Amino acid sequence: MTEPATQELASFAVEAQDLEHADGVWHAGRRTFVNAFGVGVGGAQRSAVERALLALRQLGTAPSSSVLGRGERLSPTWAAFVNALAIHVDDYDDTHLATVVHPGAPVVSTAIAAGEVVGASGRELLEAVIVGVEVAIRVGLGLGTAHFDRGWHLTGTAGHFGAAAAAGRLFGLNAEQMSCALGIAATQAAGLQAALGTMTKPLHPGKAAANAVEAALLARRGFTGPITGIEGRRGFAQAASPRPDYSAMLSGLGTMWHTEANTFKPYACGIVSHPAIDAAIALHHDIDHQASVTAATARVNPIVLDVMGIRDPKTGFEAKFSVYHCVAVGLIHGSAGPDQFTTECARGPAVRTLCAKLDVVLDDGFARDKAALEVQFEDGHTHSHQVAHARGSEARPLNDEELARKATDAACSVLGDRVAAECIELAFAVDSLPTLTELLDAATPQAVGR
Amino acid sequence: MTEPATQELASFAVEAQDLEHADGVWHAGRRTFVNAFGVGVGGAQRSAVERALLALRQLGTAPSSSVLGRGERLSPTWAAFVNALAIHVDDYDDTHLATVVHPGAPVVSTAIAAGEVVGASGRELLEAVIVGVEVAIRVGLGLGTAHFDRGWHLTGTAGHFGAAAAAGRLFGLNAEQMSCALGIAATQAAGLQAALGTMTKPLHPGKAAANAVEAALLARRGFTGPITGIEGRRGFAQAASPRPDYSAMLSGLGTMWHTEANTFKPYACGIVSHPAIDAAIALHHDIDHQASVTAATARVNPIVLDVMGIRDPKTGFEAKFSVYHCVAVGLIHGSAGPDQFTTECARGPAVRTLCAKLDVVLDDGFARDKAALEVQFEDGHTHSHQVAHARGSEARPLNDEELARKATDAACSVLGDRVAAECIELAFAVDSLPTLTELLDAATPQAVGR
Repeated sequence: MTEPATQELASFAVEAQDLEHADGVWHAGRRTFVNAFGVGVGGAQRSAVERALLALRQLGTAPSSSVLGRGERLSPTWAAFVNALAIHVDDYDDTHLATVVHPGAPVVSTAIAAGEVVGASGRELLEAVIVGVEVAIRVGLGLGTAHFDRGWHLTGTAGHFGAAAAAGRLFGLNAEQMSCALGIAATQAAGLQAALGTMTKPLHPGKAAANAVEAALLARRGFTGPITGIEGRRGFAQAASPRPDYSAMLSGLGTMWHTEANTFKPYACGIVSHPAIDAAIALHHDIDHQASVTAATARVNPIVLDVMGIRDPKTGFEAKFSVYHCVAVGLIHGSAGPDQFTTECARGPAVRTLCAKLDVVLDDGFARDKAALEVQFEDGHTHSHQVAHARGSEARPLNDEELARKATDAACSVLGDRVAAECIELAFAVDSLPTLTELLDAATPQAVGR
Repeated sequence: MTEPATQELASFAVEAQDLEHADGVWHAGRRTFVNAFGVGVGGAQRSAVERALLALRQLGTAPSSSVLGRGERLSPTWAAFVNALAIHVDDYDDTHLATVVHPGAPVVSTAIAAGEVVGASGRELLEAVIVGVEVAIRVGLGLGTAHFDRGWHLTGTAGHFGAAAAAGRLFGLNAEQMSCALGIAATQAAGLQAALGTMTKPLHPGKAAANAVEAALLARRGFTGPITGIEGRRGFAQAASPRPDYSAMLSGLGTMWHTEANTFKPYACGIVSHPAIDAAIALHHDIDHQASVTAATARVNPIVLDVMGIRDPKTGFEAKFSVYHCVAVGLIHGSAGPDQFTTECARGPAVRTLCAKLDVVLDDGFARDKAALEVQFEDGHTHSHQVAHARGSEARPLNDEELARKATDAACSVLGDRVAAECIELAFAVDSLPTLTELLDAATPQAVGR
């Protein structure tokens, strides 16, 4: 007999408590929040966000909710949508590596929007973030790698469940209503990997967030949904996963926290290229004249070309899914932040020349966080570097200081250095805030005001 | 090599013209519009709609767009959502039988909302309806029965594509933008059969419609999406159908119209029970004292219990997916309209007693539109009736007069007899209307006003 997964996750999402006394997960939730908050402010003025706002403006909205890094106010659903879009747009957010779920974008955006509606405290917000991240990861684990292999983008699919759990918790749903909210989310859970390299990839957590806010409010009003939406006959698992694993989804629920394994990206692109970028950055200083490079070979786990095989990227979005571009900017610029993934950078002659000289060799013996890079020069010399565990991986996570620096750097392009630093400091102390007002005000650019 | 299905459907949706000179499809589109319009007005005050409006009110909205059968005005996306919900909420709308797509709800609601925004003429509206219905059906044909068998509800999944085609056409997208709009719709296409029997089933076309309006506006603003969202690597077909059939999806596109095969429901429930209901209604007058019935046996196609096997329905929504309830109300009431699918009716002692006496026998030799019913009485008599083709099936469609009567009857509970009749008459002449204003005003209840 199949376990009543939807209802078990719903009970967990409603009943989980005393999270602040579980140091590991509480701090992991805080880090997830800070990271998403910083990159969300940093992504707030990208073209995908601007274009989405143009479309939304035509639809009209209630100016009730805050938008990170912007002066506009939007309805709670649109605010959740735009904040998730901004958090994910740079591919600079967070990753649960085993599932390749990026839980921060759908969950943190939803928690901010729902939390603002109900006047939540920072502690309540953080509880909702943790519950939502945990549900998203667990649904991802339960759907399994075969779900990914079919083409689903788990930040969209599993993200719907995590976002609904976060929204439902903040809106005060009881367990029955939460089951309906998860069922309403299940029937909308979507997101295709075909969208990688387009603005529609960050739309996935955007819609997960907006749909989740709606689902929770519908369920609260007695709108009925399928309370076996995950595991039931013709539910999401049956439709979208050939081999659902309910043990992986549910075991240790409430006592063992996958949220603690969430990691934070040091580079603004698909995560599977990160070890190769580490290697390229390590060789950056060895390259005085990149024109003299004759060839380069990267050895990586096979998933790299499966997900990031765009040979000749023409836009910044495509560059984020090109290991060739990633290695080239690592070698040339010595970094791989949002500035290295603009369309201008993707089309630059030096980067394109180096992309064309790079061979990628797939090696089943290389773990996903391992890579090696060898660069050959005209004078016959070769330089090489091997990375055992990528920066930001579970084995080598960013520490709090590095994370704060990353989030501050991301936010400062929008808020300026001083305000960005203050803002990220506030975000780190989110659980001490009586409401979200001070923090969300701080994330609004001064020049635009309210 | 896979055909570029997304782009071919996009070109068709943008370029199809002179539809009013193709009598068959033009009239089929008109009938689809009238039917959806009538049942949408009739469904406008159901509890699912009321609950959705309570939730939406909390989110705030721009009061720009009309809602069938109601005084509220909502943003274009919410209006599309609520209108689709109302059209589908009674399971009384339309069916493309080969795919089990109900195209009217997602497409007509979208066309009304988008058409109102751009000030479309009735003729432009009808063109968009036809293009949208055709795309929804063709995507359904291409996804195939295996997509249905996995648990997807095609009115949600295929409905997304049809709705996006209708919205994109009315918003004046070019072919490239339309491909993006279809790609943005593809990555959100969803809807699970697990939701049958809950309010979330009609949410499927609601979200298809709302997502489609957004997708078209995003694409118009240059928001990029996967232009191979249907057929591409890790696109919707690969993710959600084991055996996509692009020939079925694309052959005859623009010259052969599946829209002409759209049918209209005479009964307010899942369509596969309709032949059994015909048989029950035929025996209604033979039953003076239903208490004297000792047993009844219905012989039907096996899909009936697959989709409508709820033995003991406890709500009106569950009753719509119970062949037992359907046959019982046919025998007892001699009809099976929305009034026979209320929760009160489902819990009535006479209906419940008769439900318990009914056996359903599955017979592979019975086509989906065929059924036989035998009723045994205490005195030893039996009465039986066999239906070769259900009312409303392709072989035995409702004629225009029957369709007008159905739509008028549906609308009159909300608008009153006289206004409902005027309204449906106007709807039949939709292609002569310079704008949608007169028609949408007529569908607003007088007592509520604007």
